Amino acid sequence: MARPLILISNDDGVQAKGLYALIDMVRDLGDVFVVAPDGARSGMSMAISAHTPVRNKLIKKEEGVTIWSCSGTPDDCVKMAFEVLLPRRPDIVLGGINHGNNCAINAHYSGTMSVAIEGCIKKVPSAAISSGYLSPDANFDAMRPVVQKIVNHMLTKGLPEGVCLNVNTPPRDEFKGIKIQKMGMGDWHDEWQESTHPHNWKYYWIAGYYAPFDPNDETTDTWAYENGYVAITPLQLDMTAYSAFKDLRELMVDNDN
Amino acid sequence: MARPLILISNDDGVQAKGLYALIDMVRDLGDVFVVAPDGARSGMSMAISAHTPVRNKLIKKEEGVTIWSCSGTPDDCVKMAFEVLLPRRPDIVLGGINHGNNCAINAHYSGTMSVAIEGCIKKVPSAAISSGYLSPDANFDAMRPVVQKIVNHMLTKGLPEGVCLNVNTPPRDEFKGIKIQKMGMGDWHDEWQESTHPHNWKYYWIAGYYAPFDPNDETTDTWAYENGYVAITPLQLDMTAYSAFKDLRELMVDNDN
Repeated sequence: MARPLILISNDDGVQAKGLYALIDMVRDLGDVFVVAPDGARSGMSMAISAHTPVRNKLIKKEEGVTIWSCSGTPDDCVKMAFEVLLPRRPDIVLGGINHGNNCAINAHYSGTMSVAIEGCIKKVPSAAISSGYLSPDANFDAMRPVVQKIVNHMLTKGLPEGVCLNVNTPPRDEFKGIKIQKMGMGDWHDEWQESTHPHNWKYYWIAGYYAPFDPNDETTDTWAYENGYVAITPLQLDMTAYSAFKDLRELMVDNDN
Repeated sequence: MARPLILISNDDGVQAKGLYALIDMVRDLGDVFVVAPDGARSGMSMAISAHTPVRNKLIKKEEGVTIWSCSGTPDDCVKMAFEVLLPRRPDIVLGGINHGNNCAINAHYSGTMSVAIEGCIKKVPSAAISSGYLSPDANFDAMRPVVQKIVNHMLTKGLPEGVCLNVNTPPRDEFKGIKIQKMGMGDWHDEWQESTHPHNWKYYWIAGYYAPFDPNDETTDTWAYENGYVAITPLQLDMTAYSAFKDLRELMVDNDN
């Protein structure tokens, strides 16, 4: 039987330690094929390169591990892998390991998450995997059994169509366990840091801090993450707010429709 | 009573005809404040400028209409408006009018949609408004009564917290009516067009065509749009797939949690 084929991308770029940590954790479980951005692409969400051409470069090809870099976004990397670079459809798609958590609404901004969402659009079981360890030389060893458990689950049982996983592990050497949680709600504060250019014009760096609307809600990914648990949040492609249909139909749709 | 304050951004850039068409449609309903990208930013999704500084420029300030351009992404524009540029919190947030539809899963890639999602994160009633007319000199006149109806609804009744609207109007001079529809599912095909650089290396433009998985599903936004209706799809911030919790808990979580 052919070994499973595991596609990996990330948003910290092809040089990131988290990428190699993830390769190392899953290479015993299947052949690994990486298409990762050629530099850092944090906060790129599902962006695609609509206005610039995209190039690929083969970085490494050895027994069981192939690594390409791509000049595009994380989402471009997945699209490029499926259509141009992969030898066949992968069995699963993984994003990560991201240096930094992608809990709560931050999944919407995350390039790591976009890898999983794009895989999900293409009907392949997909997960984004993030760690609270931000440092470029972070030690991700504690994640190994968790990641292997998740990947084994995905390879043997799959995931429901239209559903992918957002996995967030706190910056600890030991976890209290795994919790299946909902996406937390919240917002960013002090989002722009103003500076002045030598020619005296103002510019801004995006910055600030995220605060959950309800930090005590024990059902959110943020709560689990902040309290030492691995938070697994299943996310669905279909963002339709079905609960809003009735009111909108009554108020917006004329009777003759 | 103070006039409503309407924040507008887009992803086609501050020069786009669709932006000025939208300003013209809503300026009788409130004061208009625009913060739009300084050039085209299609397919930027919820991307933020994590790695580059962002600048703003005042383009125009007249009675009831203020226009800023911003060097960042559509999502940056909304964040910049709320924290730096707006005189007060807006009453509603609008993205558009986009030159091109954002039906179905394409909402995930859309910069126009990101304007509405970011407004929704900030708890302001928000909508993305797109037309099937792609041309830079498209005529959006048929949309006027539809847009005014939606904006009036948002200003008087608001929207449920965590829900924003994705509005897609077909490229026609007359619509059959308005339908409240779900987000369609589908995927892109022939996504990369290969070319060769004068120095003989390959590069790729993103391209291709979108095809719905089920074109006959009359409950999708794509079906309504393709059949001459204005499709309004309420989208929710919370992407949690609650239906997947039970299986994941049984399979992934140890009993001692």
